[in-house]
Amino acid sequence: MSRVVKLALIPGDGIGPEVVAEAEKVLDAVTADSGVTFEKTRFSLGAARYLETGDTLSDEDLAAIAAHDAILLGAVGGVPGDPRLKDANIERGLLLKLRFALDHYVNLRPSKLYPGAPGPLAEPGEIDFVVVREGTEGPYVGNGGAIRVGTPHEVANETSVNTAYGVERVVRFAFDQAERRRKKLTLVHKTNVLVHAGGIWKRIVDEVAAEHPDVAVDYLHVDAATIFLVTNPGRFDVIVTDNLFGDILTDLAGAVTGGIGLAASGNINPDGAFPSMFEPVHGSAPDIAGQQKADPTAAILSVALLLDHLGLSDESARVTRAVEDDIAARGDSGRPTAQIGDAIVGRLQA
Amino acid sequence: MSRVVKLALIPGDGIGPEVVAEAEKVLDAVTADSGVTFEKTRFSLGAARYLETGDTLSDEDLAAIAAHDAILLGAVGGVPGDPRLKDANIERGLLLKLRFALDHYVNLRPSKLYPGAPGPLAEPGEIDFVVVREGTEGPYVGNGGAIRVGTPHEVANETSVNTAYGVERVVRFAFDQAERRRKKLTLVHKTNVLVHAGGIWKRIVDEVAAEHPDVAVDYLHVDAATIFLVTNPGRFDVIVTDNLFGDILTDLAGAVTGGIGLAASGNINPDGAFPSMFEPVHGSAPDIAGQQKADPTAAILSVALLLDHLGLSDESARVTRAVEDDIAARGDSGRPTAQIGDAIVGRLQA
Ligand SMILES: CC(C)[C@H](C(=O)O)[C@@H](O)C(=O)O
Ligand SMILES: CC(C)[C@H](C(=O)O)[C@@H](O)C(=O)O
Repeated sequence: MSRVVKLALIPGDGIGPEVVAEAEKVLDAVTADSGVTFEKTRFSLGAARYLETGDTLSDEDLAAIAAHDAILLGAVGGVPGDPRLKDANIERGLLLKLRFALDHYVNLRPSKLYPGAPGPLAEPGEIDFVVVREGTEGPYVGNGGAIRVGTPHEVANETSVNTAYGVERVVRFAFDQAERRRKKLTLVHKTNVLVHAGGIWKRIVDEVAAEHPDVAVDYLHVDAATIFLVTNPGRFDVIVTDNLFGDILTDLAGAVTGGIGLAASGNINPDGAFPSMFEPVHGSAPDIAGQQKADPTAAILSVALLLDHLGLSDESARVTRAVEDDIAARGDSGRPTAQIGDAIVGRLQA
Repeated sequence: MSRVVKLALIPGDGIGPEVVAEAEKVLDAVTADSGVTFEKTRFSLGAARYLETGDTLSDEDLAAIAAHDAILLGAVGGVPGDPRLKDANIERGLLLKLRFALDHYVNLRPSKLYPGAPGPLAEPGEIDFVVVREGTEGPYVGNGGAIRVGTPHEVANETSVNTAYGVERVVRFAFDQAERRRKKLTLVHKTNVLVHAGGIWKRIVDEVAAEHPDVAVDYLHVDAATIFLVTNPGRFDVIVTDNLFGDILTDLAGAVTGGIGLAASGNINPDGAFPSMFEPVHGSAPDIAGQQKADPTAAILSVALLLDHLGLSDESARVTRAVEDDIAARGDSGRPTAQIGDAIVGRLQA
């Protein structure tokens, strides 16, 4: 019995295509004898496409992507400050549009300090937690506006929208993660200042906590959470938080665990109504694009998340183990992008 | 000619009174022969006062405080989760009310790694920057609300409000700081997602930058800024940012430069229409209150900021130097609160 998985590939801009190429090698290698065939469709989307055609993400593209079983994305975004991209906002028009349209309400971002990975902390201890970041609400909804733009009387507003429906579903997902891990969940918000947005998060976490008496629950203000991420990251198991705080905490967590070159993520629709999308946390880094300087590890670990999401947990574990072994042997090597990919494939086949 | 400064003291809750006591010792010692007399009025405000009287900050208290030349605050806030404080919100009702009512539009937070201070980074390098955090706008304005609270149909919103008036004045202050320092200014925001709030900040920084051709200006998304704070904090000189991002970045910066026990701040009304307020960045830490375990250094460095604000720059520099010398000699001593204050006073008098 062979299974076919329809995979949409969005290599994107900058280093995106380079790291996706390595991720594909790894995916192909690990699924070679698995009985699962990946049918890949490539979508040319991002700043480069916008500059050619003026399209960010057309309805046709969106519909075509939505017809797949899963998505692997590299990175999107042009050179910062490029005047031709001034009115584009590739992030909102492409990346966030995909997350919102495909109802990726869980943005899952694991942080682990792998033995051998160079980190900035003097005494990092053991670090192994996941951030469950909400993906479809909060300050990211785009409910903002401005009047008298460009004048001394401009007023610019942004509204964070938080619903019981939206908060509860991601909080439930986070508790499920905690049940499968070390049974500890930390809500991060800023309830003392954002009393309404914070209030709904606090209330729903308390309610769902009552159904999980075996999970230890605590709460941290976002400012305090950043302190603990550098002074005691080992205290975290599962962090659940809103879209903006999750954005901030996961970049910091990436830095603390050896750099954003290792940080993978899944934009997940757990209901399966839409395809989930896997991508490295890093951006398109146009300054080093095309030079084989990018680390493909985050993209490769995103493949591990993708495999796990598809129920291919053995294959996922094999990829993670191969990456771990590679990191442990890495040193300060500065190998080219393709060489890192090849080394990881080599370990898979060994 | 003797000058009288009317100083409002708000020791507050938890460790607040302990650290303010040491700050007062230092203030008294350094101004003993300066010809400046501090006339102090004590205000009993905070969670303890609320529990006694039900008052958070009455109009009378506010008017009385506003009639002073400056304010020194310890920390306010009760034991987290205390059910009797459930409806109080001391932070919004007292601390933020003071900042907003007294138009503290600059929240000035210096971050410096003092020789001898223990930090979490393996290779911190030289760290010496200031965060100019906006204090009267952004997501802190309290323009939020919720409907159907406590039901599965709750919707909770928070609106960030940003005005050209409010952004321009704090950006001008930040450029003045940069002119007096290493002439580098970094705007931190999230312009790719919060396009309206981010847009007004970007535009105004660009406009004011044109008047300061000698200041090098760059921009970072808030998530990227947290990465640099742990991987390359030495790159920063002046950071200007909004109220919420400033809250997050300064706690992280405090952690990176040896802990929140050293981080001082000024809530400043540069126009002088209202008294400015100086306070340690740390909170009331009720768990260690009354045990002489708190580090009074942040409160003492807040006195240095206060003295500088009052034009007593020699006295300010003497306090800073005494603190620096104390930190350099400190080791892992774990001295009681009062002993640290006494040691710093001793250095001032030596
Ligand atoms: C590019 C940007 C819109 C995005 C975000 O803010 O979510 C990125 O920072 C991320 O974390 O995936
Ligand atoms: C106590 C809280 C309201 C306050 C803030 O968020 O501004 C504190 O975190 C700070 O940074 O001074």
